[in-house]
Amino acid sequence: MNSPMIRKILGHIMRIEAILMLLPCLVALIYKESVGFIYLTVAGLTAIVGSLLILKRTDDNTLYLKEGCVATSLSWIVLSLIGAAPFAISGEIPSYIDALFETISGFTTTGSSILSDVEALSHTALFWRSFTHWIGGMGVLVFLMSIVSLSGGSTINLMKAESPGPSVGKLTPKIKSTARMLYLIYAGMTIVMIIFMLAGGCSLFDAVTISCGTAGTGGFGIKNDSMAGYSPYIQWVVTIFMMLFGVNFNAFYFLIMRKFKEAFSIEEVKWYFAVIISSIAIIFINIRNIYSSAGEAVRHAAFQVASIITTSGFATADFDTWNTNCKIVLVFLMFIGACAGSTGGGIKVSRFIVMLRTMKKEIGAYIYPKSVKKIMFEGKPADHEMVRSINTYMVTYILLFGISLFLISLQGEDLVTTFTSVTTCINNIGPGLAKVGPTCNFGYMSIGSKLVLMFDMLAGRLELFPILILLHPRMFKDLLVSSVKNMRK
Amino acid sequence: MNSPMIRKILGHIMRIEAILMLLPCLVALIYKESVGFIYLTVAGLTAIVGSLLILKRTDDNTLYLKEGCVATSLSWIVLSLIGAAPFAISGEIPSYIDALFETISGFTTTGSSILSDVEALSHTALFWRSFTHWIGGMGVLVFLMSIVSLSGGSTINLMKAESPGPSVGKLTPKIKSTARMLYLIYAGMTIVMIIFMLAGGCSLFDAVTISCGTAGTGGFGIKNDSMAGYSPYIQWVVTIFMMLFGVNFNAFYFLIMRKFKEAFSIEEVKWYFAVIISSIAIIFINIRNIYSSAGEAVRHAAFQVASIITTSGFATADFDTWNTNCKIVLVFLMFIGACAGSTGGGIKVSRFIVMLRTMKKEIGAYIYPKSVKKIMFEGKPADHEMVRSINTYMVTYILLFGISLFLISLQGEDLVTTFTSVTTCINNIGPGLAKVGPTCNFGYMSIGSKLVLMFDMLAGRLELFPILILLHPRMFKDLLVSSVKNMRK
Repeated sequence: MNSPMIRKILGHIMRIEAILMLLPCLVALIYKESVGFIYLTVAGLTAIVGSLLILKRTDDNTLYLKEGCVATSLSWIVLSLIGAAPFAISGEIPSYIDALFETISGFTTTGSSILSDVEALSHTALFWRSFTHWIGGMGVLVFLMSIVSLSGGSTINLMKAESPGPSVGKLTPKIKSTARMLYLIYAGMTIVMIIFMLAGGCSLFDAVTISCGTAGTGGFGIKNDSMAGYSPYIQWVVTIFMMLFGVNFNAFYFLIMRKFKEAFSIEEVKWYFAVIISSIAIIFINIRNIYSSAGEAVRHAAFQVASIITTSGFATADFDTWNTNCKIVLVFLMFIGACAGSTGGGIKVSRFIVMLRTMKKEIGAYIYPKSVKKIMFEGKPADHEMVRSINTYMVTYILLFGISLFLISLQGEDLVTTFTSVTTCINNIGPGLAKVGPTCNFGYMSIGSKLVLMFDMLAGRLELFPILILLHPRMFKDLLVSSVKNMRK
Repeated sequence: MNSPMIRKILGHIMRIEAILMLLPCLVALIYKESVGFIYLTVAGLTAIVGSLLILKRTDDNTLYLKEGCVATSLSWIVLSLIGAAPFAISGEIPSYIDALFETISGFTTTGSSILSDVEALSHTALFWRSFTHWIGGMGVLVFLMSIVSLSGGSTINLMKAESPGPSVGKLTPKIKSTARMLYLIYAGMTIVMIIFMLAGGCSLFDAVTISCGTAGTGGFGIKNDSMAGYSPYIQWVVTIFMMLFGVNFNAFYFLIMRKFKEAFSIEEVKWYFAVIISSIAIIFINIRNIYSSAGEAVRHAAFQVASIITTSGFATADFDTWNTNCKIVLVFLMFIGACAGSTGGGIKVSRFIVMLRTMKKEIGAYIYPKSVKKIMFEGKPADHEMVRSINTYMVTYILLFGISLFLISLQGEDLVTTFTSVTTCINNIGPGLAKVGPTCNFGYMSIGSKLVLMFDMLAGRLELFPILILLHPRMFKDLLVSSVKNMRK
């Protein structure tokens, strides 16, 4: 186990977080909120510790997949542990466990909250809360790679561990320029969204925080009624940008490169929009009579569909009051999730496409036993390894889901609450149904349930294996032995 | 498509059903119920049509997997269509769709009922209803193979299509003697159970019908309160026999052959009992305080666990009133199901063992990337084909489950009813939760919902693919072309 290298990465991550934490300090300065000093102190200490971790030279820069996974998981845990501190120290979220829940929910772009009254928070805290979505959306290690050259050439394993989807597409031959390109697109689109929001009469603070939450497909609102109080124009802007941030970023890269044909022929993106449009249609038919005009019904249907499939979790309507048919469609969308290579969570559209084709192939094999058909995906045969890894992912997902359900059921809530609280956390969505519906929050849950859901949020964001291998007994031993050996040197 | 051979099999199946239908006629004679004449007439007509289908000579006795599947699916459909007739003609179940639901539920050993008052039925109808469980439990084609020698040697494909579990174990080199051995064990155990029931003071009629329902892991009761009114002794007898009929029949074969070591080393059976014991323990802790004595609590816990994991569906207690932790455990058991090679339904314990090991192997592959580990099952490496087929099964299961959920949600019931009605039908259990709980029935559902659930029951019993390929457009064409060609000859 290359623990010096893992330590170095953690040091870098801490320094990045320290720098990013200066932004809420700036917000504190603007709004003259004394809480800013707490953020400044935490940032300062984090920077010092981070720099100390980097000081020591590393002999070997190689990172195997295992080490990439461990580095990524530990980075996310450290990031959250530090990110939660200002909430707890300032007393805005008195319990540290609650603060950690909120922060993990932020970084993993889940958006499930333990707060019943977000409007009571300071501007500084509200900004930091939404900004964690933006940081977590594209991934903090991808950010690290876009600014630091980690030699060794094996940094692809960090990207593999952090990027969502069954396979990592390198846009450019060099990891560093791929990472930089992704962040440029990400930041560019966020700025465009802020401009659209401002054009609709939104205040700068609202525009920035909501855009951060939309870009990361996070979903923390800054109002107690989430997005219900905003104008239809603002709601439509958020709807459209949620959909866009759920698109595979390869499509945007192709657009920038003026490869329009490639951009519009990505199978996953086509299916993604097909699912969105059909879901909006089904829900519209169901809710048409609840709202005064067809326009309003379409707007609410489109907003909720976009919010759930991209796993953002904003809400303009209390969909817990809609009928069962609508709820089932929304629950499906919770599992399907956005495109691979987007900022969204869930199982991902591409995995479902491959699963559908696996089923079709199997039925075909009964009928034409002699034909050797390949499963096609994105115009080429899906390699055996990809199909296998999707199947293993699904199996692991089901088992983790089952264990979590059992543990949350000890809390003693009704079945729908139990089921959707796990669903919404493991898929990084935000609200569920019943007692964790869009008008409710997770504050009342026991510490045990909160810990399970925090684990699920991290497992969901990092796509299970990076976080699960940390639980392997061998891993503990490896890390410990390697660290001790290294300290002796 | 070898349609003459399929026709011949259907003919045989009809003749078998005609003979089996003489048993309810006997019951009618004993209880002097005039409804027996209806059963006799239907049996007679079925025998005539069946014999006509067999008359014509077949040139080619080969059955490929495709044809095995089609023959099996069509046999089950024909069996149900005919089996439902006496219910509808006698007016005991006035609607033919309802009668068909009840009959499919019977043959597939589901046990979901549309009747609110089963005690109003004649003895003849009650017997036929429970007897369909017994016929469907071990499989009607397995029965056919145990009495008729279908030459061609490819009858293994019929067994593959009808027997539950990821792989078909041939107990003996010859299919016919394997099938005969299975039925001998099955009938023997049923008779032993009847004797135990009689010893507890149960009437012969009750003993026979309940034993048929237990042996097939079906679950149709003959009382409105299912098994709640019987003595603790009877309830324990049913509990133990439900567990036994959920065991892989290979174990019983080994016991008969005096191969005790082999019998007690079947991994699936050990896991099966481990799941049963831990589930009983968890539920016991939860319900201890509801019941007056620990003994009563253990009895209800054991009965319900055995009933659900074996997918029987009898009930001694209304588990819909138990707490969420109990319900989650029961819902898990609904999916896990019994052992492969038993009469039970569900996904099967063996599939879960292989899935758990797939996950373990994947996590191991991250940690020890160079090691080439095989997934072990029953002491030997699970071959690639088996792992692949389990994965494909799961994917198909999830997709069919999703489509069914969507269709049932149109019915407009609450989420728990929607979810558990599909769960209970696709896994061939019987009762679900909420409005389809153990004290309720499926009678109020729309015809559309009933059709979906009937399809799910058949798909669940035949393990998806045999019934799904019937939906393939190519299949229709093949069958039609082949039949027309054959008629011209």
